[in-house]
Amino acid sequence: MVSSPNIPDIVIGRLPIYLRALTQMSQQGQTFTSSHELGQRLGISSAQIRKDLSLFGDFGKQGTGYQISHLLTQLKQILQVNHEWPMIIVGAGDLGRALAHYRGFVSRGFRVVGVFDNDPAKIGMGNGDWQVYGMDQMVSFIHKRRVKIAMLAVPAETAQEVSDRLVDAGIRAILSYAPITLVVPSGVHVQYIDPVMHLQRMTYYLKSDER
Amino acid sequence: MVSSPNIPDIVIGRLPIYLRALTQMSQQGQTFTSSHELGQRLGISSAQIRKDLSLFGDFGKQGTGYQISHLLTQLKQILQVNHEWPMIIVGAGDLGRALAHYRGFVSRGFRVVGVFDNDPAKIGMGNGDWQVYGMDQMVSFIHKRRVKIAMLAVPAETAQEVSDRLVDAGIRAILSYAPITLVVPSGVHVQYIDPVMHLQRMTYYLKSDER
Repeated sequence: MVSSPNIPDIVIGRLPIYLRALTQMSQQGQTFTSSHELGQRLGISSAQIRKDLSLFGDFGKQGTGYQISHLLTQLKQILQVNHEWPMIIVGAGDLGRALAHYRGFVSRGFRVVGVFDNDPAKIGMGNGDWQVYGMDQMVSFIHKRRVKIAMLAVPAETAQEVSDRLVDAGIRAILSYAPITLVVPSGVHVQYIDPVMHLQRMTYYLKSDER
Repeated sequence: MVSSPNIPDIVIGRLPIYLRALTQMSQQGQTFTSSHELGQRLGISSAQIRKDLSLFGDFGKQGTGYQISHLLTQLKQILQVNHEWPMIIVGAGDLGRALAHYRGFVSRGFRVVGVFDNDPAKIGMGNGDWQVYGMDQMVSFIHKRRVKIAMLAVPAETAQEVSDRLVDAGIRAILSYAPITLVVPSGVHVQYIDPVMHLQRMTYYLKSDER
């Protein structure tokens, strides 16, 4: 793996897409693939895929393409998901609980280890991996378990305040489901999931007579 | 509004971000903004914002900036969310139910009108807007209610098959939470939400000693 100080973020954003597709191919018993096949599957040009991957090293061979298991290992190392990250969820409402029960995290580098909420009726709920704790226990939990990643499933009105507390406690990556733009210090990473944004991006293309 | 046949999709993808920020400003009582202020808030350059918006018309005035209410009206019209789109959810598991209960759709152009699942224990659940129906009722429901948009909250294994049925029934936009790439005919739009992809994009940047 080549050291890679200045890779554009847009390229980094495509690596998880490649990782997911390659994982799927591997699970289906496939051992080799090509930039052409990957591109077809993902709707990305094969030239773009070759260019992206070449920024990190020489993974493919002219003629035989990419060995999937090797590329998987490399991509996981680059994205640092070759080990498991403990992760907390703030907010144990419908969404927070759905996320806590989601079974797709563990095989891909993440494990929910705690959920935090102010509602006494929810405190104590949980499974073998996590349980719901009160918000007053959040900071000490983050320290003790050395958690660096949080998912934010709280209402828009409290999201910034909770984000501030998470950052103060040592959280360095926040995946926010609250529909507001958070202000965080540099060095803290934020990604947003807002289903309405994806929907609005598609309605642009729908014919008006289809409404 | 200028007719706009060939706007790059990446620009379309930024319009919902502008719409969301402007809505928030408006709710806070603000009446004017500038590309500079918007850019600061969103981490997008003011030049980019001016360029994006100029593709659709001349919305700002040198010196006074953008009138928020006017720009909101225009953006909603461009994205076709000045009217409400009926929407169905397939899958009434934890995630599907969390989505069905989400209160952030209606004010932004969408309303969940039906949820579909094969589990008899879930059929009949609902609220005033929607209830859970069996999968065998999906196609006729889509026709009757003239639904064009579906959210997919089913396991990866069944996502493609459900997607095929949705498209056959007339769905033209799918927001999929299943972690696989769907194959759809041209003219059908798909967007994906996969929290792990967002997480993996951030772990790239976390220092190894922070793991």
